[in-house]
Amino acid sequence: MMKNIQPNTDRIRRDIEALAETIDPNAGGYTRISFSDEDRRARKYLREVMETEADFEVRIDAAANLIGYRAGQRDAPCIMVGSHLDTVPGGGRFDGIAGVIAGLEVARRFREENIVLQHSLEVVDFLAEEPSPFGLSTIGSRGMAGKLNSEKLLSITDNTGRTLFDAIGEMGGDPGNIDKARRSCRDILLNLELHIEQGPQLYNQGIDIGIVSGIVGIYRGNIEVSGRMDHAGTTPMSIRSDALTAAAEVTLCLEMICRQFADLVGTTGTFEIYPNAANVIPSRVTLGMEVRCQESSKLQATVAEFKSCVDRISRERRIEIKADIRPSSNPVIFDQKIKETLAVACKHSKISCLELTSGASHDASHIAEFAPTGMIFIPSREGRSHCPQEWSEFEHVGRGVVVLANAIQMVDEKQQND
Amino acid sequence: MMKNIQPNTDRIRRDIEALAETIDPNAGGYTRISFSDEDRRARKYLREVMETEADFEVRIDAAANLIGYRAGQRDAPCIMVGSHLDTVPGGGRFDGIAGVIAGLEVARRFREENIVLQHSLEVVDFLAEEPSPFGLSTIGSRGMAGKLNSEKLLSITDNTGRTLFDAIGEMGGDPGNIDKARRSCRDILLNLELHIEQGPQLYNQGIDIGIVSGIVGIYRGNIEVSGRMDHAGTTPMSIRSDALTAAAEVTLCLEMICRQFADLVGTTGTFEIYPNAANVIPSRVTLGMEVRCQESSKLQATVAEFKSCVDRISRERRIEIKADIRPSSNPVIFDQKIKETLAVACKHSKISCLELTSGASHDASHIAEFAPTGMIFIPSREGRSHCPQEWSEFEHVGRGVVVLANAIQMVDEKQQND
Repeated sequence: MMKNIQPNTDRIRRDIEALAETIDPNAGGYTRISFSDEDRRARKYLREVMETEADFEVRIDAAANLIGYRAGQRDAPCIMVGSHLDTVPGGGRFDGIAGVIAGLEVARRFREENIVLQHSLEVVDFLAEEPSPFGLSTIGSRGMAGKLNSEKLLSITDNTGRTLFDAIGEMGGDPGNIDKARRSCRDILLNLELHIEQGPQLYNQGIDIGIVSGIVGIYRGNIEVSGRMDHAGTTPMSIRSDALTAAAEVTLCLEMICRQFADLVGTTGTFEIYPNAANVIPSRVTLGMEVRCQESSKLQATVAEFKSCVDRISRERRIEIKADIRPSSNPVIFDQKIKETLAVACKHSKISCLELTSGASHDASHIAEFAPTGMIFIPSREGRSHCPQEWSEFEHVGRGVVVLANAIQMVDEKQQND
Repeated sequence: MMKNIQPNTDRIRRDIEALAETIDPNAGGYTRISFSDEDRRARKYLREVMETEADFEVRIDAAANLIGYRAGQRDAPCIMVGSHLDTVPGGGRFDGIAGVIAGLEVARRFREENIVLQHSLEVVDFLAEEPSPFGLSTIGSRGMAGKLNSEKLLSITDNTGRTLFDAIGEMGGDPGNIDKARRSCRDILLNLELHIEQGPQLYNQGIDIGIVSGIVGIYRGNIEVSGRMDHAGTTPMSIRSDALTAAAEVTLCLEMICRQFADLVGTTGTFEIYPNAANVIPSRVTLGMEVRCQESSKLQATVAEFKSCVDRISRERRIEIKADIRPSSNPVIFDQKIKETLAVACKHSKISCLELTSGASHDASHIAEFAPTGMIFIPSREGRSHCPQEWSEFEHVGRGVVVLANAIQMVDEKQQND
């Protein structure tokens, strides 16, 4: 029998505010980069609250995911709820954090209401969901999906030369036995992730919950423009090989191509220039770009159009441009039955909902590859995210907690009756 | 009576090669930034050679210019020959260095040939001609022109917080009495600077010496684009406020405008982007640009056209762009009599010459404001400069030495007869 639970919004607020203070004071916004001291302190906070308020056993798996665990009545696969505590540089207070705290709150309310599931419950802070100092994102969920191995971890370094292998070890993982982090559909019955939408749809339409149909696929690339370093005052415009103006054209070309479609986005996010001196014509620019779309064929066609545009710029400007663009993650379509369960869970508590696509990748993408997975979104004020202005109402986190709790009980009971 | 002198090309090569080894081994190319340890070591080398081979008294003036001095037969204004030993990051072996060593070689040959001038002779290594860590160039020659004061030196800092005041003190200057560096037409009869062309004209036409008609004026500016930081995956193209794509358009606009004229150049040399993360739409880009032209009115009209182009981009993209563009140095027209003397000096030794404009600013620009000044260029291979490939033949430096020696003797004797 499904029990209606009421979330404790004050407690949710307390947790989110405490984590919002656990940041790098020298970076802008709310910065808590994965593997940093702040990241470790945030995990210490989470672990303490998990142990004292949710009666969780807390462990760190081989991929350094932090997992709170409570046994169910039966020896059966677990129900998992998770997201991440790390942020982007200059980021916000809710992206990832809301999902971890919502999972925690479900567990706390279950405990307080004496709801004991048939299945065990796990609440996860996935390691390094955001782009990390190692140039890799969703590291913890990749580990759970069996996509990491020790050699790979040893080959990836940050800009101080530290290996990802060592960094995972420092976070409490077991990089030499990374396979132990691997999970399968035999031990995960259901994985749910609550996340902020990071777009404007729910906020603009005044809807409480988004049921996520799937996650866009992503192509990421590095474009390296190699021109010729010359004196900015003495080299006529006509004989220059200016890496910056060529890179500027590449940047605008990506924007122009992506503006053609309403359901596709493309961004140049990083830009490095050499020698970066006032009176020297730039000889090298490296830019980092990406394209995202739910539809595989459209994604591929857009990347192809961009590449041919880069070739044209290279030819016209007689300048070397190397474009290395690869699929970074495939589009994900979430489990249809879970989407239906989430819709019923909303309806049961009279919470408005809407089905929509996720423009961002999430830990759920990797888990969805081997276990039944669903995601819900809560509204983001003005669609803003990855910035200090990122905001969701604590009441919306609370409504998400209700939907998670309903869906978890439905799956737990249904599975029991099967 | 003018004596013909033959330069010692091996000695010129030895000096230039020794200085080419006095660089920062961790930076690219031949990097010897002003105020650095390398800069100090290069000066130590120069001082020793000046003392042992040119019979110079060496002093450091209040603006930390290093000056080698030999008295003339009369108590009369000096003849000055100078350039600089500092380089840009990733720069070359000849820019500035060739001029200092050419001046030194003139003094050495005069000594060896027992040529004693009526006027005293000074060979100068001007402090910090290239853009310095303090964001200011031609510091030493500014000091000689009386353009610096102690308050200004105290207000300018590098990115470690060190003041220019302290830095000049560390180089042996007297920043508290910076006015003592000031010179006038009463004590400088003639100032000559030999420099590499840094452009392709002499090299392409196979001409030995350029007689510089004047130096371009420069406008420099910072353009700050302020957009909105948002998630790169979830923010539709249509509602973005992307500082990078706007900055890219600004960069291309400057290029397009400057390409209209053969005798004008414009460059965006520096580019800073925030937050510079793969999945965040850039919220802030600051770019540093400049425009150079010998003709004041064309320079001003170009800057005005660029500004109105920036305003249009700001309006069309609905993004804030602040453009702060100011005159950095005025065009300089060199002394007509000195140009004629230099032409005669070339002809006398059957050295081919051509009159041309300098696209780069030089120490001579500041000295020309108060004392009779001239410049000669020697060919730059393929017009390259400010890069490791920067190259001039030692024989061309030697031909420059001959022209300097001829011109100095002509002015010295003429002045005697006046």
